[in-house]
Amino acid sequence: MNNHKINRLALVGIGLIGSSIAKAVRGHQLADHIAISTRSPTTLARAEQLELGDSYHADANNAVKDADLVIISVPLGAYATVAAHIKSSLKAGAIVTDVASCKQSVIIDMAPHIPDGVHFVPGHPIAGTEHSGPDAGFAELFEGRWCVLTPPDGTAPQAIETVSQLWQAMGSMVEIMEPAHHDQVLAITSHLPHLIAYSIVDTATNLEEDLKQEVIKFSASGFRDFTRIAASDPVMWRDVFLKNREAVLEILSQFSEDLTALQRAIRRGEGDKLQDVFTRTREIRRGVIDYHQE
Amino acid sequence: MNNHKINRLALVGIGLIGSSIAKAVRGHQLADHIAISTRSPTTLARAEQLELGDSYHADANNAVKDADLVIISVPLGAYATVAAHIKSSLKAGAIVTDVASCKQSVIIDMAPHIPDGVHFVPGHPIAGTEHSGPDAGFAELFEGRWCVLTPPDGTAPQAIETVSQLWQAMGSMVEIMEPAHHDQVLAITSHLPHLIAYSIVDTATNLEEDLKQEVIKFSASGFRDFTRIAASDPVMWRDVFLKNREAVLEILSQFSEDLTALQRAIRRGEGDKLQDVFTRTREIRRGVIDYHQE
Repeated sequence: MNNHKINRLALVGIGLIGSSIAKAVRGHQLADHIAISTRSPTTLARAEQLELGDSYHADANNAVKDADLVIISVPLGAYATVAAHIKSSLKAGAIVTDVASCKQSVIIDMAPHIPDGVHFVPGHPIAGTEHSGPDAGFAELFEGRWCVLTPPDGTAPQAIETVSQLWQAMGSMVEIMEPAHHDQVLAITSHLPHLIAYSIVDTATNLEEDLKQEVIKFSASGFRDFTRIAASDPVMWRDVFLKNREAVLEILSQFSEDLTALQRAIRRGEGDKLQDVFTRTREIRRGVIDYHQE
Repeated sequence: MNNHKINRLALVGIGLIGSSIAKAVRGHQLADHIAISTRSPTTLARAEQLELGDSYHADANNAVKDADLVIISVPLGAYATVAAHIKSSLKAGAIVTDVASCKQSVIIDMAPHIPDGVHFVPGHPIAGTEHSGPDAGFAELFEGRWCVLTPPDGTAPQAIETVSQLWQAMGSMVEIMEPAHHDQVLAITSHLPHLIAYSIVDTATNLEEDLKQEVIKFSASGFRDFTRIAASDPVMWRDVFLKNREAVLEILSQFSEDLTALQRAIRRGEGDKLQDVFTRTREIRRGVIDYHQE
């Protein structure tokens, strides 16, 4: 980052991702000043208590003013409002990026508010945990993980390079992708798995109380992995499904067909079909291990 | 285990569970002699190479002869054959137990072959990993995990106590349950989650090659947890679904209804409904953590 040293970094939103960025940037000395803003007074006070930044602002305009780089880390449903709110405070030459897990909707929501002379480089660090809020962040969250950037055609290469180098300095590998393609890939790797996990835990939630308690007690046999995923931030995930609706519904429909085929095989006692499926799924796991993403 | 010291323990089947029992029994000195048998010559040779036991037998009859306790750890579909094969070699007063994750089918398959004077205490250690075979075992697998016993009415209390003490000595907590109730609870906590994981990874398997490679590459966002579960032993899981069919189909049908309701909420843009579900699922996670099963 030496050739792209950031003077003032503004973090709008200071949840799991924002606070992890704050810690990683501080740890690697990637910016001279970290200005933090969030609309929740409680969260802002907590961020200050945790000493996540150098200055704290109830109004995002005061954080982004004079900032070279602005990273917006808010629930998907809030990007349009935030972008409209800060647009007149962005300095010429500033770079704005985000961390949202749907890129098409963020571009639709934010691009109209980006002033001429300000660069917009949409980004998505593919990293996270089931915890949320400013206490959940840790500097190593992005190490060894991918960060996907989806810059619109015509984005200044230096702006892409600055954002890219920041993520690499925090330990990530950077990949450039088309927004629609990103949304399709993430619908499969992230959004559908979360929906399924929420759904299976919801099924358990609807059980009669005694049975539910036993399900919790004996959860170590597979179910508990789903409960971890289904403990993720409800507002963030509500927005993901509303914003990436088409891609999620498409892959969900394929999943439902595949699950129905397994259900049919179970009902008909077709052991060979089941064994075939359960054998070929092992290959994918080997691929995950080969990519060091396990 | 001092008051129930086992002279000769026979392990029929030496996969993940069998080899973990061998190591735990050896580590805690719970038996004077561990006799190992498996029908695969390769696996038997490997068990000997790993020094998992004290004697190795191609024919299970030679392992169970003179054994005080026989633990059968084979795929669900093999219990009837194994029980029929060894029945005339079991000594009077011996105890036979198993580790299968469906109890009703094991009782149906094995009970008719248990001779008079031999005790049958069906059991299920709720522990495992996605790895299989004699190399996968480790002595700590059962520590802090539940083991459910489902003894038929009239089982000798001393036999239940001996099996119970063995599991406790290996670090487990023991619970007695009705077989049908066990199968219902496990259908929810284990069998459905595995089916779902297999199914979602199968959906990825069916994608066009380029997209599949990207799904593997960016799997860290939720999908990889499913690939781990879906790497479990295919034969074992084929048999689980064939043997616990009714309970699995029942909970699968509830799950499908719940998933369809979420799908409908996504299609109609009903954010409040989604957020309600995603919020109440967090309670279950808190329960899992409170039970120290996370």
